[in-house]
Amino acid sequence: MTAEIISVGTELLLGNIVNTNAAYLAEQCAMLGLSVYYQSVVGDNAGAAGRSDSARPWTRSDIVFLSGVSGLREDDLTKEIAAKACGQELVEDAEAKERLTSYFTSIKRPMTENNLKQAMVPGDCTVLYNKNGTAPGMVVNAPEDKKIILLPGPPGELIPMFHEQAEPILSRLQPGILYSKVVKIDCLGESYVETQIMDLIDEQSNPTVAPYAKLGEVHLRVTAKADSEDEAKELVMPMVEELKSRFGG
Amino acid sequence: MTAEIISVGTELLLGNIVNTNAAYLAEQCAMLGLSVYYQSVVGDNAGAAGRSDSARPWTRSDIVFLSGVSGLREDDLTKEIAAKACGQELVEDAEAKERLTSYFTSIKRPMTENNLKQAMVPGDCTVLYNKNGTAPGMVVNAPEDKKIILLPGPPGELIPMFHEQAEPILSRLQPGILYSKVVKIDCLGESYVETQIMDLIDEQSNPTVAPYAKLGEVHLRVTAKADSEDEAKELVMPMVEELKSRFGG
Repeated sequence: MTAEIISVGTELLLGNIVNTNAAYLAEQCAMLGLSVYYQSVVGDNAGAAGRSDSARPWTRSDIVFLSGVSGLREDDLTKEIAAKACGQELVEDAEAKERLTSYFTSIKRPMTENNLKQAMVPGDCTVLYNKNGTAPGMVVNAPEDKKIILLPGPPGELIPMFHEQAEPILSRLQPGILYSKVVKIDCLGESYVETQIMDLIDEQSNPTVAPYAKLGEVHLRVTAKADSEDEAKELVMPMVEELKSRFGG
Repeated sequence: MTAEIISVGTELLLGNIVNTNAAYLAEQCAMLGLSVYYQSVVGDNAGAAGRSDSARPWTRSDIVFLSGVSGLREDDLTKEIAAKACGQELVEDAEAKERLTSYFTSIKRPMTENNLKQAMVPGDCTVLYNKNGTAPGMVVNAPEDKKIILLPGPPGELIPMFHEQAEPILSRLQPGILYSKVVKIDCLGESYVETQIMDLIDEQSNPTVAPYAKLGEVHLRVTAKADSEDEAKELVMPMVEELKSRFGG
């Protein structure tokens, strides 16, 4: 299955913050065996949402992550666009509303009309309640068994929500496990290393071999997919030995 | 002028590394007064390059950054795609070839055929020579006065190359300077703060006011563009005072 990560946030476009959420989600996808072919960043105003390739992610990817969706701003149309893409209306989620109300009572702050928008969710979705903030997440059931997963922006909210609530849903969608091992090669240069393993680099094979350059060394990541970790290891380890023998390690 | 940042790298899609280059380039663009509406990440193999919206960036943005272009891999087609988008052929750059040859002689390592590909550049471009690695950068002159700027992936190569060679070219394209000041507001919540400044949030105004939430506080960034720093400050400071008075600072 393929996944795509869209980060929403003007502060990312301005370079005020580094997009650690995208790296976190990408790594989690890799561990779940989801192939991520695209990541993108768009601003969080209406204009930017309109400018995003909003029609395409849902057609080209099985799972689309939208992170940084606060649902707060007058002009944050991301949730609406996601609902529309799935042919759904936004409806008020009673538990989300109850949680928002309690939260604002507990911190003794006024709840604005804007805040109440956070309790609106697409009609056919699993709501991911937020223990660490006010914006709930959602796993929206899109046509053709696709999913659009909306997550809040702050890493302190996104990470626990993903780990506790989204990951179990994704694990059920994607049976089989992925196992990776990295072979480190000192100092020969990525170009030289690649020339020596050209015959092994094939995206479609199982295991796959992917080279990437680190400062002063090249890493070769060997990844296999199988029904169990033992089976995946059995695919990975012979390739690891082959690589070690080619580079004298 | 608008800019767009495309980062090329499978290690980004796998979440092995965090995309600090995109944040760096975005911040530099903001300082240069370039509006960044899109950032994206694609893989570095032929398939991924084909999957990227390769036809669109050059039509929707004035300046397109492509970072992480090594030009090394058999299947790294990014440079070719950029050249083709500009209707140009790749030609060998004599100085780039000379530098590559000297580099490999100096480190006493074999130079492969793959390495020599790094000396191939689009016909109409300014080559940015790399003091800290082998892959040169390029500012490719695209139709309608647009630019495609290719930069290497390692931050230790990209940052000095951008700062010393690309930035002076961009500064000439984009006269006028941008000045920003951040007003910090403690603990009131982004939603509440936004409600209070709805009348001031307008992307098209000068200065602009952009709110973003940090842990436990909200930052309001006031940015103006003018011909000189003094003039820009004159636009920014009254807005900063207005915001402080609204939030009792």
